[in-house]
Amino acid sequence: MIDKRQDGRVRVVIENVRPCADAGAFPIKRVLGEAVTVWADCFCDSHDMLSARVIYRRSGSSKWECEPMEFVDNDRWRGGFTVSELGCYEYGVEAWVDHFQTWRSGLKKKHDIDSTEEADYAAGLSLLERAHSRILAKDLSAFERLRSIVTFSSDETARFEAAYGDELFHIMRRAPNTGLCFRSDPILHVTVDRKRASFSSWYEFFPRSCTGNPSRHGSLRDAAEYLPKISAMGFDVVYLPPIHPIGEKKRKGKNNTTEAHTNDVGSPWAIGSAAGGHKSIEPALGSFQDFERFIAAAEKNGLEVALDLAFQCAPDHPYVSAHPEWFVVRPDGSIQFAENPPKKYEDIVPFNFETGEWEALWEELKSIVLFWIDKGVRIFRVDNPHTKPFAFWQWLISEVKRDYPEVIFLSEAFTRPKVMNRLAKLGFTQSYTYFTWRNSKAEITRYMTELTSGELKEYFRPNFWPNTPDILPQILQFGGESAFILRLVLAATLSSNYGIYGPAFEQAVSAGKEGKEEYDHSEKYEIYAWDRSKGERITALVTALNKARRENTALQSNRFLEFYHIDNDYMLFYGKRTADLSNIILTVVNLDPFHVQKGRLKMPLYEVGIEAGESYLLEDLLTGCRYVWHEAQNEIALDPAVCGAAVFKLDRRLNREVNFDYY
Amino acid sequence: MIDKRQDGRVRVVIENVRPCADAGAFPIKRVLGEAVTVWADCFCDSHDMLSARVIYRRSGSSKWECEPMEFVDNDRWRGGFTVSELGCYEYGVEAWVDHFQTWRSGLKKKHDIDSTEEADYAAGLSLLERAHSRILAKDLSAFERLRSIVTFSSDETARFEAAYGDELFHIMRRAPNTGLCFRSDPILHVTVDRKRASFSSWYEFFPRSCTGNPSRHGSLRDAAEYLPKISAMGFDVVYLPPIHPIGEKKRKGKNNTTEAHTNDVGSPWAIGSAAGGHKSIEPALGSFQDFERFIAAAEKNGLEVALDLAFQCAPDHPYVSAHPEWFVVRPDGSIQFAENPPKKYEDIVPFNFETGEWEALWEELKSIVLFWIDKGVRIFRVDNPHTKPFAFWQWLISEVKRDYPEVIFLSEAFTRPKVMNRLAKLGFTQSYTYFTWRNSKAEITRYMTELTSGELKEYFRPNFWPNTPDILPQILQFGGESAFILRLVLAATLSSNYGIYGPAFEQAVSAGKEGKEEYDHSEKYEIYAWDRSKGERITALVTALNKARRENTALQSNRFLEFYHIDNDYMLFYGKRTADLSNIILTVVNLDPFHVQKGRLKMPLYEVGIEAGESYLLEDLLTGCRYVWHEAQNEIALDPAVCGAAVFKLDRRLNREVNFDYY
Repeated sequence: MIDKRQDGRVRVVIENVRPCADAGAFPIKRVLGEAVTVWADCFCDSHDMLSARVIYRRSGSSKWECEPMEFVDNDRWRGGFTVSELGCYEYGVEAWVDHFQTWRSGLKKKHDIDSTEEADYAAGLSLLERAHSRILAKDLSAFERLRSIVTFSSDETARFEAAYGDELFHIMRRAPNTGLCFRSDPILHVTVDRKRASFSSWYEFFPRSCTGNPSRHGSLRDAAEYLPKISAMGFDVVYLPPIHPIGEKKRKGKNNTTEAHTNDVGSPWAIGSAAGGHKSIEPALGSFQDFERFIAAAEKNGLEVALDLAFQCAPDHPYVSAHPEWFVVRPDGSIQFAENPPKKYEDIVPFNFETGEWEALWEELKSIVLFWIDKGVRIFRVDNPHTKPFAFWQWLISEVKRDYPEVIFLSEAFTRPKVMNRLAKLGFTQSYTYFTWRNSKAEITRYMTELTSGELKEYFRPNFWPNTPDILPQILQFGGESAFILRLVLAATLSSNYGIYGPAFEQAVSAGKEGKEEYDHSEKYEIYAWDRSKGERITALVTALNKARRENTALQSNRFLEFYHIDNDYMLFYGKRTADLSNIILTVVNLDPFHVQKGRLKMPLYEVGIEAGESYLLEDLLTGCRYVWHEAQNEIALDPAVCGAAVFKLDRRLNREVNFDYY
Repeated sequence: MIDKRQDGRVRVVIENVRPCADAGAFPIKRVLGEAVTVWADCFCDSHDMLSARVIYRRSGSSKWECEPMEFVDNDRWRGGFTVSELGCYEYGVEAWVDHFQTWRSGLKKKHDIDSTEEADYAAGLSLLERAHSRILAKDLSAFERLRSIVTFSSDETARFEAAYGDELFHIMRRAPNTGLCFRSDPILHVTVDRKRASFSSWYEFFPRSCTGNPSRHGSLRDAAEYLPKISAMGFDVVYLPPIHPIGEKKRKGKNNTTEAHTNDVGSPWAIGSAAGGHKSIEPALGSFQDFERFIAAAEKNGLEVALDLAFQCAPDHPYVSAHPEWFVVRPDGSIQFAENPPKKYEDIVPFNFETGEWEALWEELKSIVLFWIDKGVRIFRVDNPHTKPFAFWQWLISEVKRDYPEVIFLSEAFTRPKVMNRLAKLGFTQSYTYFTWRNSKAEITRYMTELTSGELKEYFRPNFWPNTPDILPQILQFGGESAFILRLVLAATLSSNYGIYGPAFEQAVSAGKEGKEEYDHSEKYEIYAWDRSKGERITALVTALNKARRENTALQSNRFLEFYHIDNDYMLFYGKRTADLSNIILTVVNLDPFHVQKGRLKMPLYEVGIEAGESYLLEDLLTGCRYVWHEAQNEIALDPAVCGAAVFKLDRRLNREVNFDYY
């Protein structure tokens, strides 16, 4: 039985359309102004020639735009388009047998051996006849003129040139016969975010620790005073841990003890008390007016405020009594607290996403996001998204981004790789990573290669954090200030998104809990009095790095990261560049925080278009020092006591222009 | 807006289900009795435990069968099923949060540190309560007994053992709560063929050359007399070039000349004359009765007859006048012959698959296949399928196999790789390959690796031909009989499907057309008188190889092909084995047809379960010689003048049994 829905005369097929995520089940990601280079295998039976094009449109638009594709090799074609509006785009590939091109190329072969016949021209003329009604108005008179030569000319040369020439070729190309074209299936999607989605520098701090006095609870007003300093360091996102009322029931004491004393402030992630829940502000931090002023102050300082979305409750959160159906009620009638046996988290009750009332729960959680959007927030750092269902996030993020495509969600999922990747695939704009635990040359190289190749690079935007209030990795516990510096350089130059848990990082706080990768006396459970006069060395470096990042487009994307050879396993050498090679940053890091390491590196001169023997200029953006080098091979020594890294800007001003096509 | 069609409480997701072809757009292939080992990433949010199962059914059946999957690593699960009926099967994966397992494992952790509480048992009992209605009848009394212990026992040990023990675990596993399970999407398909689809030895010959007299046209009766010899050599498929009437108009003469003389017989691929078309038999070959007798004689000799499907016409084929609408009519009213400028094939007119009457054309071509199926044919070698549309083949093959799932289609597409792969994907049972042009160690290793890894191995079944009537490769033109032998051994041991263009191969015919890979005076255009007394050496080797293939299951599939080390680039060392290691064949080939080559090879002793220092027995299946070796490293010399290859059967009878899981 023949399927009447399909026209059996369509002879082209299209396979293997890239980029895509899970064969098109999820959108890929781009930021405004970025290119989507589309690849596809297009072919048909027999020796006929094809034409192919990329089709694309903003989702919701009824009209497809087209860009022609070019044949590359081995039945692979390439084309592309640029995304210029926030939101969602759709794209695909169309290809069709191009009888005019097939005929034209056959005519050429015959012409070359002087064997064209009247029948050959007749065949072509019948193609022109059928094309007539498709010819663009602007092309019609030229078309008629050429057709007339092909029809009537007795001058074989003129006739062939009219038939084969570029003019007719382009007229016909503008009026393709796509009646029997094949369209790739499924149509693919791309989420277009604003630039900050792929280039951002985050600074995390606790507003309550902004008074310089550990017994006085800081407010948003106190925190606002700290903003100019953060801005001066070159950050663009300030991320605050949850600012909601903190539960009093089962509140944790200092250093994560189970009993809180009267003045213990508790963990901001244990949300909700008689003072309110996720749509309230902890009274000690201030009012909504204070919050709005804080947002405004941040904006004035070129900073954007990121809030924390922690969808969980303290036992005295108003939801718990108002909506017991959103929680697990134990056989004895009590509400189930969080548990991962044998560990118990009595100060937290998780939502039960298997509740029969899941729709109401989803809507309420969405209303929390919309509430803070209404207050001016456009960036959310999402706490433990891997403990809530994937379907929920997919729905929530698409709901929010439909109306607010500028919103950025950072996934704080430190968990198994496939879970982390799924969260990125289903819509999270940025993701925490394993960077925090990747220290050796092999580990870093392998992990970065994973992040910047294959499908992952199309949807997973890493955000590198050397530390967080939850995590003080071993290397920062034992490596001293030099370790902070090397981890900072790695984060800021390997990943276009990075962040630090600021005050503790600046002051190189290294005291961990015995045998754990956690801070001893974590700021999560108490108010700190940070000594603002300390940490100058790190602050200066942060400032230099953020300046380098702002001034060098190469560092604002991970698309062109490459690792290069250096003959010392304690040293890492890598580069980032722009597609057009107009900006090239080459970084060398000594991974050993204790000793001077020396290595011979090989500059990728060929890759950046410098000829052997040409001299080139390097400027170390951390020190301002300049170097003129003449050879690909060069020795470099990095002393962690001074600065265990060099971030070179390669200046090619004296050299010829080279353009490399993007892949 | 919440999508009401989906239950938001489903927390599991499934990704990356394998095997599949193009994300499930095409079926994979198996033969009767083969396993489909299914892999999938299954995971959910949080730390809850999962269960997963493979679901499968014969297409058309309304009931899914299930097989449990096991967790492997990194969220990857494995399960599988065996296909036991011809036709099409469907399969997928289901996974769900297993609250009983989660609870049980938490209970264990608490029990281990003596911290179980009444509330823990209460939580489990409420799970048992809800499971009650699902418990299988045979399990009910045991279930009640265990539940009663968990409920009432005051003996903590007995209580824990009842709750945690294997008995309750298995009862619950047999009655899973799949209410909120996730089913992978899309459902995948597997085409199940008979064994011959993956294991066959083909012998091609022209019936008209079976009289021993070049001026007497052989008939099917003459050809039948040749069958016992083919059978004695151990082949199982005899493939005949087209047996239809040959066009007289524009018939080709001897050696592919454009003028035929009176007695020239023409090419069997120029089908159709006044004597009939694709549903007729060339009168000189005999009648339909002769054909039926030929089929019966073949069957008696353990041989199956493969016919050629060449969907093209001679200019005097009855279709041309009866259905001009199926061809391209040129402006002057003549029918367009085949052409690939500047080449012209005036003796052939191709069908026009872009005709408005494509449906009638498709149906007619299908009726040709059904016609010969009705005459007892179940194997078709399809001529140049890449010159007809993919959609047509996909439709034709699925139409035919719906009613005749035992039919085998061999794709004779010597063309670009993606086109060849597409034909295999859309349904061709077996495929011609590039083997004919892969000679060096690197070429063969790379090509075999491509064929036996990735998705290709799931749907592309190679059929290796050292020669065909169309192709006499360079190595056979210059390498003498030794080259025929080495190519034969490679074809028969690398690929479980192989074939030879028989008489020319046995007699090592090496005369090619100047500068071409074609036979000089090809049998395609004239009657040959083969000297049946010649070619003994090759015939003996063919017989030994086919015997080895029949007696050794390892050679009947390509699933476990591996290349091993030998320190001479002119020598190739590889092995095939069964999944259970019960049959292991190790082949060494000297790729140089002129000189003795000597190499030190490393037997894969570890892989086949032989301990260092153990002795093992090898039998060369080509010579019958036996060897006892004691070391992994051994020197071997192969003299092409004697036999440039050794096909060792490794006998492990004295060694311990080892089972390796398949993947």
